[in-house]
Amino acid sequence: MVDLRSDTVTRPTPGMRAEMAAAEVGDDVYGEDPTVNALEAEVAALFGHEAALFAPTGSMANQIAIQLLVPPGEELLCDADAHVVTYEIGAAAAYGGVSSRTWSPVGADIDPEQVAAMIRPDGYHAVPTRAIAVEQTHNRGGGGVIPLGTLRELRRIADGAGVALHCDGARIWHAHVADGVPLTSYGELFDTLSVCLSKGLGAPAGSVVVGSAEQIERARVIRKRMGGGMRQAGVLAAAGRYALRHHVERLASDHVRAARLADALAPFGVLAGPVRTNIVPLDLTKCGFDAPELGVASRDRGVLVSVLGPRIARLVTHYDLDDAGVDRAIEVLTEIFRR
Amino acid sequence: MVDLRSDTVTRPTPGMRAEMAAAEVGDDVYGEDPTVNALEAEVAALFGHEAALFAPTGSMANQIAIQLLVPPGEELLCDADAHVVTYEIGAAAAYGGVSSRTWSPVGADIDPEQVAAMIRPDGYHAVPTRAIAVEQTHNRGGGGVIPLGTLRELRRIADGAGVALHCDGARIWHAHVADGVPLTSYGELFDTLSVCLSKGLGAPAGSVVVGSAEQIERARVIRKRMGGGMRQAGVLAAAGRYALRHHVERLASDHVRAARLADALAPFGVLAGPVRTNIVPLDLTKCGFDAPELGVASRDRGVLVSVLGPRIARLVTHYDLDDAGVDRAIEVLTEIFRR
Amino acid sequence: MVDLRSDTVTRPTPGMRAEMAAAEVGDDVYGEDPTVNALEAEVAALFGHEAALFAPTGSMANQIAIQLLVPPGEELLCDADAHVVTYEIGAAAAYGGVSSRTWSPVGADIDPEQVAAMIRPDGYHAVPTRAIAVEQTHNRGGGGVIPLGTLRELRRIADGAGVALHCDGARIWHAHVADGVPLTSYGELFDTLSVCLSKGLGAPAGSVVVGSAEQIERARVIRKRMGGGMRQAGVLAAAGRYALRHHVERLASDHVRAARLADALAPFGVLAGPVRTNIVPLDLTKCGFDAPELGVASRDRGVLVSVLGPRIARLVTHYDLDDAGVDRAIEVLTEIFRR
Amino acid sequence: MVDLRSDTVTRPTPGMRAEMAAAEVGDDVYGEDPTVNALEAEVAALFGHEAALFAPTGSMANQIAIQLLVPPGEELLCDADAHVVTYEIGAAAAYGGVSSRTWSPVGADIDPEQVAAMIRPDGYHAVPTRAIAVEQTHNRGGGGVIPLGTLRELRRIADGAGVALHCDGARIWHAHVADGVPLTSYGELFDTLSVCLSKGLGAPAGSVVVGSAEQIERARVIRKRMGGGMRQAGVLAAAGRYALRHHVERLASDHVRAARLADALAPFGVLAGPVRTNIVPLDLTKCGFDAPELGVASRDRGVLVSVLGPRIARLVTHYDLDDAGVDRAIEVLTEIFRR
Repeated sequence: MVDLRSDTVTRPTPGMRAEMAAAEVGDDVYGEDPTVNALEAEVAALFGHEAALFAPTGSMANQIAIQLLVPPGEELLCDADAHVVTYEIGAAAAYGGVSSRTWSPVGADIDPEQVAAMIRPDGYHAVPTRAIAVEQTHNRGGGGVIPLGTLRELRRIADGAGVALHCDGARIWHAHVADGVPLTSYGELFDTLSVCLSKGLGAPAGSVVVGSAEQIERARVIRKRMGGGMRQAGVLAAAGRYALRHHVERLASDHVRAARLADALAPFGVLAGPVRTNIVPLDLTKCGFDAPELGVASRDRGVLVSVLGPRIARLVTHYDLDDAGVDRAIEVLTEIFRR
Repeated sequence: MVDLRSDTVTRPTPGMRAEMAAAEVGDDVYGEDPTVNALEAEVAALFGHEAALFAPTGSMANQIAIQLLVPPGEELLCDADAHVVTYEIGAAAAYGGVSSRTWSPVGADIDPEQVAAMIRPDGYHAVPTRAIAVEQTHNRGGGGVIPLGTLRELRRIADGAGVALHCDGARIWHAHVADGVPLTSYGELFDTLSVCLSKGLGAPAGSVVVGSAEQIERARVIRKRMGGGMRQAGVLAAAGRYALRHHVERLASDHVRAARLADALAPFGVLAGPVRTNIVPLDLTKCGFDAPELGVASRDRGVLVSVLGPRIARLVTHYDLDDAGVDRAIEVLTEIFRR
Repeated sequence: MVDLRSDTVTRPTPGMRAEMAAAEVGDDVYGEDPTVNALEAEVAALFGHEAALFAPTGSMANQIAIQLLVPPGEELLCDADAHVVTYEIGAAAAYGGVSSRTWSPVGADIDPEQVAAMIRPDGYHAVPTRAIAVEQTHNRGGGGVIPLGTLRELRRIADGAGVALHCDGARIWHAHVADGVPLTSYGELFDTLSVCLSKGLGAPAGSVVVGSAEQIERARVIRKRMGGGMRQAGVLAAAGRYALRHHVERLASDHVRAARLADALAPFGVLAGPVRTNIVPLDLTKCGFDAPELGVASRDRGVLVSVLGPRIARLVTHYDLDDAGVDRAIEVLTEIFRR
Repeated sequence: MVDLRSDTVTRPTPGMRAEMAAAEVGDDVYGEDPTVNALEAEVAALFGHEAALFAPTGSMANQIAIQLLVPPGEELLCDADAHVVTYEIGAAAAYGGVSSRTWSPVGADIDPEQVAAMIRPDGYHAVPTRAIAVEQTHNRGGGGVIPLGTLRELRRIADGAGVALHCDGARIWHAHVADGVPLTSYGELFDTLSVCLSKGLGAPAGSVVVGSAEQIERARVIRKRMGGGMRQAGVLAAAGRYALRHHVERLASDHVRAARLADALAPFGVLAGPVRTNIVPLDLTKCGFDAPELGVASRDRGVLVSVLGPRIARLVTHYDLDDAGVDRAIEVLTEIFRR
């Protein structure tokens, strides 16, 4: 099976498993797991922040950050297709009591002025805006990379309005590799970031929230409340540390493979947008195809794709996918689209 | 003082006060207040629904409806400038746990296809959309009236997707009077409506949620949880009944007065849009005016306007405002804009 | 009908209605209702606090106070039969996210040391206790009055632990009249109080939260979020001001009537405890009666009683009940118990 | 260091690590992790239930169950010292909106009639009770084991009242080993159970919620909302499967060691109650010792104990503690108490 559904399907490599098996561990609820502590220090340093906290999933990492930044009944602004209001099952509202308003889905092509116009000031009458969240790279936005200039403009707007800026950086590694922007250049623009060790980096599970020391101290309480305070979490943190050492720069080859897929499919008019990283977004409207129909047809030929809507699908490259897999996917998909 | 800030400033008339003083009352938490019961039956009938429930405010009426329609962690769609995500202090998220996504503010000019594209289906991965809320007339949308055809199209879309439709009808009376659409024609298009007896109708307080008998039974529990279960609420319900009999059709003269204000101010290029009902929305960007500056200048001359943003202001007509008041307002505002 | 179910059934008197009809009002959301402002100032002064806020119900007043004192995920301690965890439909948890632990129901006979033992300190592992709530008089505790000495001891404990103390003073007027304790002596012991103008005092609706100026400023936001920000609320506040002037001292006669009822029923062994104020708690276990059965039998003879459990019922005196009503109730109930 | 603070400090054994390193894994959010699926099926079968769900922590497992059983604003009853209202940071209220009332802390010595008396029926006025939670064994209750007869009586009461029964079975394995009660005999008495693979069983992390197929389907959504939907969770599930095969019956030796500790300390009058499983609860009131003082003194001599309050401490045995460790702990603690 060639699995192009998501980079979440990657399985730990033998090297990663070996480090997990050998990890020195302790009780992380007591702050005594040396591998977790090392990972947290490393990730904080990567982004130039004071502190960081390990979390079992990217959703929990995002939600911890949102709860840190926005009190109940106050407001978060984000893209209408952002992961935080799409795939996290309403946790920001359900658990954080956070009110959200969204701008029309634009993926990485954020218009800072439009965001600025949505901000509502502190005060008694209208819900005050407390934070803006962006997603780098943008998952439903086809893996697009928000330009550094846009992020700097957003930071300026946020500062002017006294509003916090959060980065859902589940795939920030891909942006770093695609645009060559240092991680610290991203880090300095955000109050908090969440970054994922699973997905593209291939750890079996685990994300990290990055912020100030004061925030991370509060984050520890929120993580426990969310049920994320694991004991010997070092077995997972070891995988994350391995991934940071071995799996970041290699993302470039995932990008190359995604570009190859896109080039092959472009003639059929099914690309929903340009391919910048490891995601190939498909819009089948023009070619008159149903996405679920495509899903079934390709699965029958041994290729799994992700169906996101009646006409929308997605291909994702990752380290469990080699050139032969891409060749096979191109063969199967072109055959299907040719009909 | 000529008060154009809002129609919420209206005070009960002598006739209304007399009915309040004479109201037959009982303990409404036990369902024994005859005046409340009569009001609820009347409003349900006005909109052709089975049942209705009195609530102390429009915000509570909206929030009761939202909690009826959307379980915690699931989704409400609405305009980014809707009252329910702007002026209700985040209650949908904070108390209902309701996740919201918003379309770009368009006031009454809703594009049903854009709304349709935002709906997410039931399922495990993404937050399912459970309800769409529209606002008739649209407060921040300058008192605009959503055309009946648009509402019918939304109903068709909602039905197709298995999603509920709520009307924040705080000023639905103005739409009814402006467009001549029967209230039952509105009523039949919505799962729930909230309508306000205060604001344009002039009762000191009170709103009503309209829905099915089963919904209103659950609404009674939610109202008590929100702290809205008053005892001898008939003293307020009496004002509401009076307002329904005496203050609906007279809204036409508020519309005429608003139009007169708009005509007088149009030459200064400050109108943010057409005036359909009792709200005159001002955008001072072109004329280079600060809204707070306008607020102070007009107040110093005895005219109160509502400042909604750095460049945005609003004039609202209502039954405590007569022709002389409008004349005075025109005189003061034109003098200010002329400078 | 002789209605002994609750003092919530009282209807406004002619004098009260006259003041309501004549009340000077304004838009209270803008802070411009002079009658509301006067009431708030008066009630704050009565308890020696800086500020106060009108709310539509006692439940909302309590919940505002709880949300002021306890952040989401932190803890409130109270009696297992307290109004705040019994009759407010779970609002503290559902809307405030407030965790509660309760001591076994003891009504007014609080053991301060038992409360002290329940307090949990600030910190990372266990939920920190932030507030203790007591109820004066205690509704399900048979209208019992917590002695001033007990309250002082609780205050000392709360201070020692850095925990706030809230008084659900829906019927604090009865305690004041029964024990002759000045309201300011109660006021100085609590961080926040809620007091009710409805119930024993006979206003159709309305309660007041009392606290510091800073708390009441935040309370105003919470009240709006809960949907309690009414516009011309002065019509209700006028009733409350009237009640404070005319209906406090007269509670003594309600207490006398309750004592008379108790004396007449004592021989049947149905009293659940001593009668201190206007509530006569009945426990029918010993006499082998079902409470619902009693409810039906007495209603058939024109006397309404409150059924609180399979064997528990309650009689409440109030200003809509005169000596003849009490005579009739004694006649009917003794006849029933005699069988 | 002899670590008697908690059985949460146990580290994975070489055998367990080997199975983790070799685990077959997949994307568990897609339901495709074979090791997770196998674990869930095994645990469901152990307790005779239809289905089960892996969760990163015991807190999340409990909270998922509570959210399954109790809607927002409705009620959970439990011991005032229960883990679910003590160590889970208020999540039941903060995230589930669940109102809780508690009975006075009695550990395993539950009086079913007292619980029965607390249950409130469905209805409009008072918060309806939806679930009762018990903890087997009882952590703060000194590792006490609730007798099977008590649990059966609670089941009968719950059935009579239409209320659900949840077991926080983090250490149910210890009860099974101590009392010889089959796990299925426990399983059949509860609507839901949470059981822990960490703590006494020694997996680095992981708990399992057990219930009906319908409940577990809903639980999957709640787990994702709480941020507990990990991807290749099989690496942790492998540890849990290993623990179930190798670490259950050996708990008997932890119980023997705890008894040995208790016997040695009994002469000092510091035991807070009988020792039934692996927890030795200490109450230092009589011997005039401060618990924090004990904590420091014993740590200085290489023995870590858990300080739970000013006078309350705890010793816990587990598989990282051998007889030599117990000898050393006895030597150090008796020396301290002897002074």
